[in-house]
Formats: sequence, C-alpha cells, structure tokens
Amino acid sequence: MIPYTHPSPSLTLVGAGVGDPELITLKGIKALQAADVVLYDALTHPDLLNYAQKAQKVYVGKRVGNYEYTQEEINELIVAYALEYGHVVRLKGGDPFVFGRGFEEMVHAEAFGIKVEIVPGVTSAIAAPALQRIPVTTRGLSESFWVLTGTTRTGELSNDLRLAAQSTATVVILMGTKKLPQIVEIYQNLGKGELPIALIQNASLVDEKVAIGTIDTIVEIADNKEIGAPAVIVIGEVVNAQILQEVKVNRHVQKRSV
Amino acid sequence: MIPYTHPSPSLTLVGAGVGDPELITLKGIKALQAADVVLYDALTHPDLLNYAQKAQKVYVGKRVGNYEYTQEEINELIVAYALEYGHVVRLKGGDPFVFGRGFEEMVHAEAFGIKVEIVPGVTSAIAAPALQRIPVTTRGLSESFWVLTGTTRTGELSNDLRLAAQSTATVVILMGTKKLPQIVEIYQNLGKGELPIALIQNASLVDEKVAIGTIDTIVEIADNKEIGAPAVIVIGEVVNAQILQEVKVNRHVQKRSV
Repeated sequence: MIPYTHPSPSLTLVGAGVGDPELITLKGIKALQAADVVLYDALTHPDLLNYAQKAQKVYVGKRVGNYEYTQEEINELIVAYALEYGHVVRLKGGDPFVFGRGFEEMVHAEAFGIKVEIVPGVTSAIAAPALQRIPVTTRGLSESFWVLTGTTRTGELSNDLRLAAQSTATVVILMGTKKLPQIVEIYQNLGKGELPIALIQNASLVDEKVAIGTIDTIVEIADNKEIGAPAVIVIGEVVNAQILQEVKVNRHVQKRSV
Repeated sequence: MIPYTHPSPSLTLVGAGVGDPELITLKGIKALQAADVVLYDALTHPDLLNYAQKAQKVYVGKRVGNYEYTQEEINELIVAYALEYGHVVRLKGGDPFVFGRGFEEMVHAEAFGIKVEIVPGVTSAIAAPALQRIPVTTRGLSESFWVLTGTTRTGELSNDLRLAAQSTATVVILMGTKKLPQIVEIYQNLGKGELPIALIQNASLVDEKVAIGTIDTIVEIADNKEIGAPAVIVIGEVVNAQILQEVKVNRHVQKRSV
C-alpha cells in the first residue's frame, strides 16, 4: 500500500474548456489557485497554469501520435500525489466527462478514500462550432445533437455513427479527423453526399483552422487546408444555418422598413 | 427604422452555465463587466448581475407556465438597446446555442449591422448529470450521447426521441419534465423498462433535487420527490456507472494490495 501521509487528500477534475484560456470557469480558476499539484496535458492552454502559483505542475500528456502516459499511470499518479501532497487538480481539455476519461479517474481516486469534486467545462463539441457561428441546435433545422467519438476503445469507428448518420440530429464527432474518409463513406452510402459538414481544428485559438463543405467535397477541402487532429467534425444542415437564416431575416427586415 | 444613435452597437451572447454562478466562464464575466445593458432571464443566477456594475439590467424572462416576452420581442429589444446604448450582453442559462434560441438572436442582430460575439457556456445537458457523478460518456458503457428537447416548436415530443430510444447512446432530454410519462412509454414500448434514468432539477444549486430509478419506476419516484420543470433527464446505463465501476475498481485495488 502507498503510505497515507496527507490528512485530507482530494482531487478536483477541472474542465479547461475549448482552448481559449478565458473559457475556463471561475470555479476552475479557484481550484487551480488552491491546488497543491496540477496534472495537465497537451489539450489544456499553458496560460492556465499561471493560476496555480503554489502548485507543482506535472505534465501527463498523451495525444494521438505522441503517446506518453497510459490512463492507468495517470490514475496512479493522481492517487500518489493526492495522498502525499493533498489537493490535486486534474486539468482536462473541454469537459472531464465528455470522452475525457475523467470518470475513470474519479472512481479510481475514490477507491483510495480521496474526496473528488467535478468542475464541468465548456465542451468543444458545442463551442467549436458555436465560435464558427454554427449552432448545434436551432429551430426549424435541428431539434437535437448527437456527440460521438471517432476513436473507440478498439480503435474502430463507433457503431453508433451508422445510426447517427440515419437520424436528423446534428452529428458532432470528436477525435475523428483521421477517420474522415470512413465517416464520409457512411453518409455517402445513405445518399447524403450533399449534407453540409465542417471541420474545426484548434477552436478559439489563434491557429484555428476551418474547412466547410459537403460530405462529397470535405476530404479534398480538409486536405487543401491541411487540417489535422485534433479537430471537431460537425455534420448537418446547421452548418449552413447562417446562410439560410440571413436570407429569411433580411427579407423580414426589408419588409418592415418599407 | 429605429434611429441609429450609438456608433458601435454590439451584442455578446453569454452562456451563464448550469446554475452555480461560479460556473460562468472568465470571458463571460469580462463581457458582463463591459456591458452597457444586460438582458437576462429566469434561468440565470441573480449574483451574476453584480459583475455588470455600469449596466442597465433588463429582465426578459420567460419560463414554462410563467410566459412573459416572446422571442420576437426579445430580438427587437436586443436591437433597440444595442443601437441606443452600445454593448448589450444577452445572458442565457447554459449555452446560448443548446436550445437557447441564441442563434436567432445573433442573426436578427446582425441584420441590423450589430457586431455579435459568442461566449459559450457550460451546458446543463452535460453538467447536471456530471455533478451527480453521472458521466454522459464512459468507456465500456457509452460511446456517445444524444441531446434532445422535450418541447419542440409544435409542443410535441421530438420525433428524434423515437430513434434515440433505439440507440445505445446516453440520451439527455432538456425541457422534457412535463412529458416524462410519454418519454417513459416510448422506452417501455421498446422493452427497455429496466433502463436506468435520472431527473435532476436545479443542478448545482442549493435546492437541487434528484430522482434516480428505472424507466418503469421513475414517474412514481419523480412524483414522490416533487421534481418539477426545468429538469434534465438522463437515460442510459451511465446513470448506474458509479455503482458498476466501483465494484470493478474495488476488486482491482483489493487484488493489488494483497
């Protein structure tokens, strides 16, 4: 057993938001300020560490193509640091419970008697399109949205995607950039080649890149714009919502001002 | 035409987060501090208005059963205030683009030459369950989540729900509390009476109420706990995730410590 030295070990799982360091919550900032240790990874903005003045900062990054720590190692580090130093903040890109494996970290820590608090974050699934003026829902175009991962435990495309592609929901895919040709194929097989689709890389940051097209054209557009992982994929009529709505509103405004 | 008096009218659509005023983003706070006018409603926490020291505060609340402004009236108020006073912050519960009608407000304002900025927020669709330790996704239990509204434009239950109920996605329903018996019926007709379900009202606030059960038992449990609108409904195995995972982790910890 690991020696239990700190009298009140705790873990706060903090969602760092979509990228822009100002999109963290006030509660997240306060947790960082109070932290004894911060475990962070490549998806969190480096400026956020400035809030954690008194904390040890430990990089536990893992990113597609640049593998470093396993999830099991991160779980064990959280426990080891909390038991030795007290308050650990695990800073995670987006929201801790949206494909963030935060739940596994919480359950593992609690098994060692560590008190866990959750600070939800702004998820890129909603915010990356929003910052491009693409609403995941809007009246008349989309009554729901379905968020999926492109990369499941087995490395395969999620089976849920085959069902999602048949629905009228806005479909948002995280960690799916490398599977874009397979995603496109699923929609093409359903005769949905004309459906609008957008890819957004590094949302809300200065190096943000966006590709907008249709299922049939997006692979070439994304190639030309050199969009790589991690990016958010959004599929549905909402990608064109602004064009459609502007036509409608401008007509309305024109009529009123006559 | 409305007289165009202010030289730089602007609108910031700010997501106020799930309820707890500390779950607003830093960017949202800065927008409030800079605002000339704040338009807010019943779903945003009153403490947030304290950030808007120099602003006029205008209540434009509408809530099921307590109808006040129409969306068209709110759109027009945004434009009128921006053109007269400058920087309008429209403070909205959750995220502005998740059933928030923020998109309509944006497009309407832009048609009058008003510059619009979006500040995404923490959505209750993810955060309300998270704060009850229910992850919308977690390995082995759920590879995706589907967010729907219980109340569509026509007042009917969304057709998407019939498809969602057949999927393996975690299903999250906003504004569906009053339709709970109909939602339950859809799942029962699919033989899914045993599926776990949770209702969370006033998430993250002191008067938070939670009902957890199965499709077959939830109507009675929610009645007994007097859970009313607005509440978030979460359906799927993830509602029991903590129980399932704790068993697994405790076995693992036990084995390691021998």
